[in-house]
Amino acid sequence: MDLLRTHLLLSSHLLKLGHDLRQALPSKLQIETKQNRLDLVTNIDKTVEQNLVAYLQKHFAAEKIISEEGYGTTVEDLSGYVWTIDPIDGTMNFITQKNSFGILVSLYKDGCGLLGYIYEVMTDRLYYAIHNYGAYCNGHQLQAPANLALTKGLLISDERLIKKASPAFLKVAEETLGIRSYGSATCETLSIIKGEAVAYLNCSTQPWDIAPALVFAAELDLVCTQMSGQAFNLLGENKIIFATPKAHTPLQEVALYL
Amino acid sequence: MDLLRTHLLLSSHLLKLGHDLRQALPSKLQIETKQNRLDLVTNIDKTVEQNLVAYLQKHFAAEKIISEEGYGTTVEDLSGYVWTIDPIDGTMNFITQKNSFGILVSLYKDGCGLLGYIYEVMTDRLYYAIHNYGAYCNGHQLQAPANLALTKGLLISDERLIKKASPAFLKVAEETLGIRSYGSATCETLSIIKGEAVAYLNCSTQPWDIAPALVFAAELDLVCTQMSGQAFNLLGENKIIFATPKAHTPLQEVALYL
Repeated sequence: MDLLRTHLLLSSHLLKLGHDLRQALPSKLQIETKQNRLDLVTNIDKTVEQNLVAYLQKHFAAEKIISEEGYGTTVEDLSGYVWTIDPIDGTMNFITQKNSFGILVSLYKDGCGLLGYIYEVMTDRLYYAIHNYGAYCNGHQLQAPANLALTKGLLISDERLIKKASPAFLKVAEETLGIRSYGSATCETLSIIKGEAVAYLNCSTQPWDIAPALVFAAELDLVCTQMSGQAFNLLGENKIIFATPKAHTPLQEVALYL
Repeated sequence: MDLLRTHLLLSSHLLKLGHDLRQALPSKLQIETKQNRLDLVTNIDKTVEQNLVAYLQKHFAAEKIISEEGYGTTVEDLSGYVWTIDPIDGTMNFITQKNSFGILVSLYKDGCGLLGYIYEVMTDRLYYAIHNYGAYCNGHQLQAPANLALTKGLLISDERLIKKASPAFLKVAEETLGIRSYGSATCETLSIIKGEAVAYLNCSTQPWDIAPALVFAAELDLVCTQMSGQAFNLLGENKIIFATPKAHTPLQEVALYL
C-alpha cells in the first residue's frame, strides 16, 4: 500500500464528498428508524457510505470494511488491511441541526492504525493523522495537547452516563472544570485532539466512531482505551476513555464502577 | 432614543471589539477566581466590559447598566432605559477552548426588550433582534423556528441539572431526541433561536446571560419564562425554560419538581 498516494486520493475524495453534501443539504432528508426511535439513518448516510465503499474498493482494492450502515463487508479478524467508515457520525445532530456531524474513515493494518480521517463537513475542516507522520488539519500540523490533569480541564460525556454513574464517578467528574456534551464522536473526540477538553467518556462506542481518533491518539500522545484499561477492540462495542495521560489514570480507576 | 442609530453604532462597535479580541487571543490570559474555582474571570472579560460600559455611557448616555463584572451601575428598578452586558459569556469555554463563547448586550425600556445582541466572536456571527423588527444574523433575517414538540427535538441542559433532577423530569427528558450541553448561554440560546434544539433549561441564569435572548424570543415566537411560569426577572437570578411553545408547556409542568 502506497500510503502517500492513498492519503492524497482519499483526502481529495472526502473534500469533494463534503462539498456535494453541503450542496445537497437544503433538500429534504429521508429518515428511517433503526433499532429504536433515537437510532436513525438518512438517505445521506446510506449514499455517503455506498460512495465510500465503492471508492475504497475501486482505488485501494479494499477487502475488509467495517462500516455503520451495512454496505461494508463482514470482518471477523483484523489481519491485513481493515478500513472503517462512519458515513455520517452524529446522525441526530445532522438531522436536527444540519451541523456538528462528521465523516469518519480509517485504515488499519494487522490491528495497527495507519490513517485516520475526521472530517467536520460544515466547517470544511479535514483532520487527519498518519502513523508516524503526525496529525494535521487542512494542511496545518497539530501540536500534542498539554498533558493536563482532570482538575485542569473539561470532561466530555453524556446524560445517559451521568444518570447511571456511581457516586465515585460523580465525585471525580465534579473535580473537572465542567462537563460538555456535543452529540457526535466527531465533535467530542476533536475536543480532546485540539486540547479543548481533557477527557471523553462513552459507554457505547462502535469501532467506526473511534477508530480514526485512535490514530490521532498515537500521534498526539493521548490515551484511548476501554474503561477496563484494555486496548480498544475494533470488532465490537466498547466503553471508552479518550484522554490526556494525566486525566486517563484517575478516570480509569473510577470508570470501572460504571 | 433613536433605535436605528443605536443599532448601527453598537453593531459596528461590537464587530470591532470581536476583531480586536480575536487578534489578542494568542496572548496569555490573566485568570482570577471569583466565588469558587469554577467561577473565573479573565483580563479580557474586564477589558471588554469596561470598553462597553464607557461606549454606552458616551454614545447613548446610558445611566442603568446591569453587567457581570461590576463596571456597570447599581440597578434597583427597571424604569427607563436599562442595558445589560455580559462581556464574555462562557468564560470557562473561553479559557479552555478559546471558542464557543460570546459577547451579550441588550437594551430594555421600562422592562420591555428593545435590542438584543448575541455575538459569536470566533465565527464573527453577530445575531441581533430588534423589538417589532425581527431577528437577524449578519444581515440575514432569521425565520421563526418550527414549533416542535419536546419529543421532536433536542434538549439543552447541563449535568448539574441532570444529577439533581426528579424522576418526573428525567422521564420527560428521555422523551426528547437527546440532551446536549455546550457550556455557554451564547451557544445554548442560539440553538433554540436557530431551531437546532427545542428547549433550554438552566437553574442559575443571570440577567446578562439571557436578556438578549428574551428579545429574540419575542420576535421568533419562542417562549422564555421562569420555571414557575412567571416572567423572567431582570433584577435577579432565575431558573429558566427557553423553548418552542409546544416544548415549553410539558417542561414547565415537570420543571417545578426540580
